[in-house]
Amino acid sequence: MKAIILAGGSGTRLWPVSRYGLPKQFIKLNGGKSLLCQTVERLAAVVPLHDIFVITNQDYQFHVQADLRSVSPTIENNVILEPVGRNTAPAIALVMKYCLEKLKCKNDEVIFICPSDHIIEPVEKFAKYARQAETAAKAGSIVTFGIKPSRPETGYGYIKKGGKGPGVCKVEKFAEKPDLKTAEKYLKDGNYYWNSGMFSFTIATMLAEFKAYAPEISRKMPQTLAKMLADFKNMPSISIDYAVMEKSKKAAVLPIDILWSDVGSWDSLPEVIKPDSDGNVKVGDVLALDTKRTIVMGENRLISTIGLKDLIIVDTVDALLIARRGEAQRVKEVVDMLKERKRKEVVEHTTTYRPWGSYTVLEEGPRYKIKRIVVNPGHKLSHQLHYHRSEHWIIVKGTAKVTLGKTTSLVHENESTYVPKSTGHRLENPGKVPLEMIEVQNGEYVGEDDIVRFNDIYGRDKKK
Amino acid sequence: MKAIILAGGSGTRLWPVSRYGLPKQFIKLNGGKSLLCQTVERLAAVVPLHDIFVITNQDYQFHVQADLRSVSPTIENNVILEPVGRNTAPAIALVMKYCLEKLKCKNDEVIFICPSDHIIEPVEKFAKYARQAETAAKAGSIVTFGIKPSRPETGYGYIKKGGKGPGVCKVEKFAEKPDLKTAEKYLKDGNYYWNSGMFSFTIATMLAEFKAYAPEISRKMPQTLAKMLADFKNMPSISIDYAVMEKSKKAAVLPIDILWSDVGSWDSLPEVIKPDSDGNVKVGDVLALDTKRTIVMGENRLISTIGLKDLIIVDTVDALLIARRGEAQRVKEVVDMLKERKRKEVVEHTTTYRPWGSYTVLEEGPRYKIKRIVVNPGHKLSHQLHYHRSEHWIIVKGTAKVTLGKTTSLVHENESTYVPKSTGHRLENPGKVPLEMIEVQNGEYVGEDDIVRFNDIYGRDKKK
Repeated sequence: MKAIILAGGSGTRLWPVSRYGLPKQFIKLNGGKSLLCQTVERLAAVVPLHDIFVITNQDYQFHVQADLRSVSPTIENNVILEPVGRNTAPAIALVMKYCLEKLKCKNDEVIFICPSDHIIEPVEKFAKYARQAETAAKAGSIVTFGIKPSRPETGYGYIKKGGKGPGVCKVEKFAEKPDLKTAEKYLKDGNYYWNSGMFSFTIATMLAEFKAYAPEISRKMPQTLAKMLADFKNMPSISIDYAVMEKSKKAAVLPIDILWSDVGSWDSLPEVIKPDSDGNVKVGDVLALDTKRTIVMGENRLISTIGLKDLIIVDTVDALLIARRGEAQRVKEVVDMLKERKRKEVVEHTTTYRPWGSYTVLEEGPRYKIKRIVVNPGHKLSHQLHYHRSEHWIIVKGTAKVTLGKTTSLVHENESTYVPKSTGHRLENPGKVPLEMIEVQNGEYVGEDDIVRFNDIYGRDKKK
Repeated sequence: MKAIILAGGSGTRLWPVSRYGLPKQFIKLNGGKSLLCQTVERLAAVVPLHDIFVITNQDYQFHVQADLRSVSPTIENNVILEPVGRNTAPAIALVMKYCLEKLKCKNDEVIFICPSDHIIEPVEKFAKYARQAETAAKAGSIVTFGIKPSRPETGYGYIKKGGKGPGVCKVEKFAEKPDLKTAEKYLKDGNYYWNSGMFSFTIATMLAEFKAYAPEISRKMPQTLAKMLADFKNMPSISIDYAVMEKSKKAAVLPIDILWSDVGSWDSLPEVIKPDSDGNVKVGDVLALDTKRTIVMGENRLISTIGLKDLIIVDTVDALLIARRGEAQRVKEVVDMLKERKRKEVVEHTTTYRPWGSYTVLEEGPRYKIKRIVVNPGHKLSHQLHYHRSEHWIIVKGTAKVTLGKTTSLVHENESTYVPKSTGHRLENPGKVPLEMIEVQNGEYVGEDDIVRFNDIYGRDKKK
């Protein structure tokens, strides 16, 4: 069995913590590990590490690799790159082509598809269910995992099971997101389950269902992987649910009784972090007077509250969100409005992640900018120059290998160097600990676009 | 007539904007000028500028001078320094001694006492009332200014007038802060007014009332100013209201019908900044969805709100306050708790003001600290050294005169200099525009207390 994690989403409803530049699955929401890392570790209880892969897009490649590396360096390249987003059906087609061509899988290989940004506990139960589903998949079913509903939720699609037995049953039907009245009916009925977005099936089964119900995708399957990637933008954009599941006669559901959250909005945080005796969830530096049933997600800033009830407060360095509980779905509206106004706070965090590390803009003015730069061990930035600014580099931690013009030298902690305008330069961390540097830029123009690179962002020299 | 502004308070209830390091009267709450500046300008419609003085304590001396200078450089030294806070009765005694000894006033001089942190409009009405009060003061009254109440306020003391006439009347009695029921009675009665904290009286009248009712203060009046200052800590700590006003037969009240706010808490902000059609007050970068009757005081950060009603949100760089409207008085509780926990956020802002300018800590770690330093034209820092850190100085704007060891040189924009550990150094701005510099400190210890000064904080060399 191969476990494939879908990690391409951009998590708008968890703004301002989740942004396009570093979305939800890479955020450490409830402790020290990102949701993606937690998913990988959960799957490692089901399949060997080397059989876990992540499909994502170019923008998130190195984030995914950084997270995989943190679980184990041996799997940092278990990444399948989607050239462009086309929803889950084409993604699954690409995954199967990758498994057949690159991993030399046979048609009877079971593929276990999982989202990257859910919370599921406990691991042992999850592993048991995953193996049950594997057995049913080998017998020809496409197995979905149905979560026993705990409330009349209107935000999820539902699966109605046909048949009584415990374990895997046929699916009687898939139901759209219901209104409240209908959701209450489903809850009472006892045969309706939340669709968790996980699927288990053999390559052979899915190929047959693509052929029967999604010919536009099916006819691309004989291509080589390279051709499919080159042609991927011509795939129809459609979910596996619409393309196959709702039509297939092989759809099955495994009802699972487990702690599950899709962490879909700030309203779901109490499912993930247990509230205290006042019903509050408090993360960060929080002083709360007379405050009840309130979610406070803080970072470094001191947050004090007086007399609040039923609120959501999410504080980040450059953006603050305060919403009434129950209204968190509307964060998407806020994000859309900010996008329209071209606000950078929907895309960037104050810290920008790069393959070689990160930089944080500490302060900027019309003629200067100050950054804190972190270069991971063994990494380097591109060889570059700027026409409009000079830079002062002050090493605060670690040792830097600096190329200036034609000269290369080592610069140590507490030492500094000066990069004049229009001078080629390169920064590298040759050591074993992260390199931390303060960069003070000064000149008539300090925009990020004033840069000429002699090689690309991955440090690979441009071909002449 | 001399106008004296009381500017010693520390404005706890407007935390986190107002803090001990830079309290309420120096904050630009509703536009480009501090409340103190607005008070000075208001009084300039009543008396000549040079007859306006400010009494404050040592900690705020240069803040007051900076504000006075911004109104007019000719009055930057119109400052009376209180050695220690002893409430308003001793402060008034000190003011009178200063007027008699330093300003050569006669006993018939009228003294007009005003708080520094109220909003009063329009100026023309204020000036008219001030002159009415001056006339009554010359005739022997101690005139208070009673604000016609606009609501059953429980946070102020009240004055009940005796007598019908418009204009100055005798005071029938002073009433303590009432409960709600009593405040509603006062509002209906028509003869009760809010005590605005302003007083008008001649030196002769007040000296007589001190003699009759506050002998402990009265017996210090014959001293010289120098002796009174040296002995000031032995003054009883008592308000003029308790010491004299509630006992005196010369107390009078001038009812005034004017726009007045003591900006006593965040709940009073709508008196000062007109709410919009949703009842919201929005300062800063605010995106509000479905939000009503909510006060948002932002600075640089983007603030988005969804579905809020009747809230107060005050956002500063290092501290955030969110309270239910009506509960803003409880900010004092929060400040007391933070004081107990020795939190710096009750004392300091992220920008610290000094006589020579200011510094803002941009970032700090165990072995480094980055500051943005602004030195005003013509000012300099103390000649100093540090045992545990070196510093890189990068000039981003203006020209610096730098002394390192025995050498002095000029450092220009985009140039930098390095200050080794344990090396005497001095920074000065010899130019006409503010000097802006980035300082990167690096060493085994970067605390503010690692400093040896060869002269004091005002740049005056220490006597050997």
